[in-house]
Amino acid sequence: MALRVGVIGGGQLARMMIAPAVELGLDLRVLAEGEGMSAALAATAIGDYRDLETVRAFAADVDVVTFDHEHVPQDVLRALVADGVVVHPGPDALQFAQDKLVMRARLAELGVPQPDWAPVRSIAELQDFLDAHAGAGVVKTPRGGYDGKGVRVVRAAAEAQDWLDALAEDDALLVEELVPFVRELAQQVARRPSGQVVAYPVVETVQRDGVCAEVIAPAPAAADRLVEVAEEIGRTIADGLGVTGMLAVELFETDDERILVNELAMRPHNSGHWSQDGAVTGQFEQHLRAVADLPLGSTAPRSAWSVMVNILGGPVAGTLDERFGAAMAAHPQAKIHTYGKAPRPGRKVGHVNVVDDDLDDAVYVARAAAAHFD
Amino acid sequence: MALRVGVIGGGQLARMMIAPAVELGLDLRVLAEGEGMSAALAATAIGDYRDLETVRAFAADVDVVTFDHEHVPQDVLRALVADGVVVHPGPDALQFAQDKLVMRARLAELGVPQPDWAPVRSIAELQDFLDAHAGAGVVKTPRGGYDGKGVRVVRAAAEAQDWLDALAEDDALLVEELVPFVRELAQQVARRPSGQVVAYPVVETVQRDGVCAEVIAPAPAAADRLVEVAEEIGRTIADGLGVTGMLAVELFETDDERILVNELAMRPHNSGHWSQDGAVTGQFEQHLRAVADLPLGSTAPRSAWSVMVNILGGPVAGTLDERFGAAMAAHPQAKIHTYGKAPRPGRKVGHVNVVDDDLDDAVYVARAAAAHFD
Repeated sequence: MALRVGVIGGGQLARMMIAPAVELGLDLRVLAEGEGMSAALAATAIGDYRDLETVRAFAADVDVVTFDHEHVPQDVLRALVADGVVVHPGPDALQFAQDKLVMRARLAELGVPQPDWAPVRSIAELQDFLDAHAGAGVVKTPRGGYDGKGVRVVRAAAEAQDWLDALAEDDALLVEELVPFVRELAQQVARRPSGQVVAYPVVETVQRDGVCAEVIAPAPAAADRLVEVAEEIGRTIADGLGVTGMLAVELFETDDERILVNELAMRPHNSGHWSQDGAVTGQFEQHLRAVADLPLGSTAPRSAWSVMVNILGGPVAGTLDERFGAAMAAHPQAKIHTYGKAPRPGRKVGHVNVVDDDLDDAVYVARAAAAHFD
Repeated sequence: MALRVGVIGGGQLARMMIAPAVELGLDLRVLAEGEGMSAALAATAIGDYRDLETVRAFAADVDVVTFDHEHVPQDVLRALVADGVVVHPGPDALQFAQDKLVMRARLAELGVPQPDWAPVRSIAELQDFLDAHAGAGVVKTPRGGYDGKGVRVVRAAAEAQDWLDALAEDDALLVEELVPFVRELAQQVARRPSGQVVAYPVVETVQRDGVCAEVIAPAPAAADRLVEVAEEIGRTIADGLGVTGMLAVELFETDDERILVNELAMRPHNSGHWSQDGAVTGQFEQHLRAVADLPLGSTAPRSAWSVMVNILGGPVAGTLDERFGAAMAAHPQAKIHTYGKAPRPGRKVGHVNVVDDDLDDAVYVARAAAAHFD
């Protein structure tokens, strides 16, 4: 009987696991939040991932539980583990992706380079941090943020007054120094429960309005030492946090050639979508191999360059089908991945990958194909 | 709403359409022959594809009907078309893949190079053909053959006595000259209803016991003229027969550098499995694009060489899962595709693709990975 992999969450990351699951012969089962989600084809249950009994019933029919997102509460995860359910990544690892204060403290213990940071509970504490860091900082809610939500650049403590007022008694905000970065990078690694780790080449990511817009793999003009350091950071975090499955480490590259850890994600990540077409083993296949404790696949690039551009549902006239047709007609080389989501301005509804020997060509074609949807 | 593509037949070809359908955003629906077929994940109906009412009910819920195999009877196909159902490839094209005598006659009209052939209804007719062709021929039942079944090399007419005795009144057998070929090739093209045609590079296929065992793409040491002629044959047949979707043309290369058409298939074909990993657009994606009348994708190879080796269910000890694990551990570069079928000796249960700049390395890794299943 095929190994049953249960994915909690029915978004596009679960959807993009379907293709490799079919080819690998894994029985993918999804607990979706509702009808008609991106991963509907593989949905075998619909319900609230915060409800233990819902998750417990779903987990009873699978061999391993993994995730489309990191929002399943710790108490639900720990109850599953107590039931004997195999969960990858497990709650001990996932806590570091769920709470940025816990993550910062652990990375400090591991000696991983990161921005200066502090927990703050009051205007006074926050102002002290700002005063010590040239008057600026990035304030983050430790939990629940994504795509730029829960993140605010402040130059006076009062700008975080509302978040401080809303803090529960034992909670704190995270404040980080505002890093003068020259660009953003991302390092992906995969780790099996048995300890095998493989690393992808470090990539450059371009954000717009806090959302990943474009990825170039590998990161252009990256010095050998930077590539090695990025991989070492990825491996250190995967081992140190006991990650199982894909890990994405978002990084800042500074003007003095340091790299500092910005965020973590313990699942396939937008910065790794290029690998679907640009690497021997795409990140969705790799995640499945890792959580199923199968031998990991080669992370070698298929070509010199891969470029990923996100498709954001925009105000262009015409149905999504018409726009896909026009993009495909103009760019036969472009690999268009669609998420089965209704378009609305700014919503990620798909992405384009282009793999080419020439970087300029790849960037041009990927942007031009995606522009049919702007 | 996503375009609904209905596939008649739930085998591995339908299964391998699932992955690209998800990424393209097509709603794939399969009429399977029974429970637990390879394409079960996308099965929305189960029934007999020879039964008009079963097929009619299935077709009522899709925008276009296509196929996992060529066995749907002409009267069923023509009734669908009369109902207004869009069928690709349509019955006018599909008849040439269903009946080898009809195919030979049409290819002769198109001037496509092929072996000498004749319809034969008696021992005398068959013996006349053999006498005119150095005493040997290949006798074929015009309908229903696959993987070497319905094909027999004869050196005396009496060797086909049983097939001749079983002929219905208006039927005939097909006899072809025994071509002294040096190797077998396959040319794949895709054609949209609107007439767009794209061609893949011609590949070398290696058969064992009448079953495709190995494919090398592109065909090694193929002269430019041979490559051009093969592509021209593919395009001529696709246009001349009005094929919609993928067309595979199996070819003989002779010792005097001619190429002759052996067989046709109007669907994704074993000789094109390499393209899943080795071409910018795999044949399963291309078939879906063609039958949905979407712009066709680039057929460019992703690397210098791709090698496909079939996995035949064999007598090796251990479960299929254990063998997959061992193959993956030893060969991280190998792309293993599994069909979700119970193994039995000689049964195709999957295949391995390896894409590499070096042909010897690709052949070695693909064979070594597949050997875990022998």
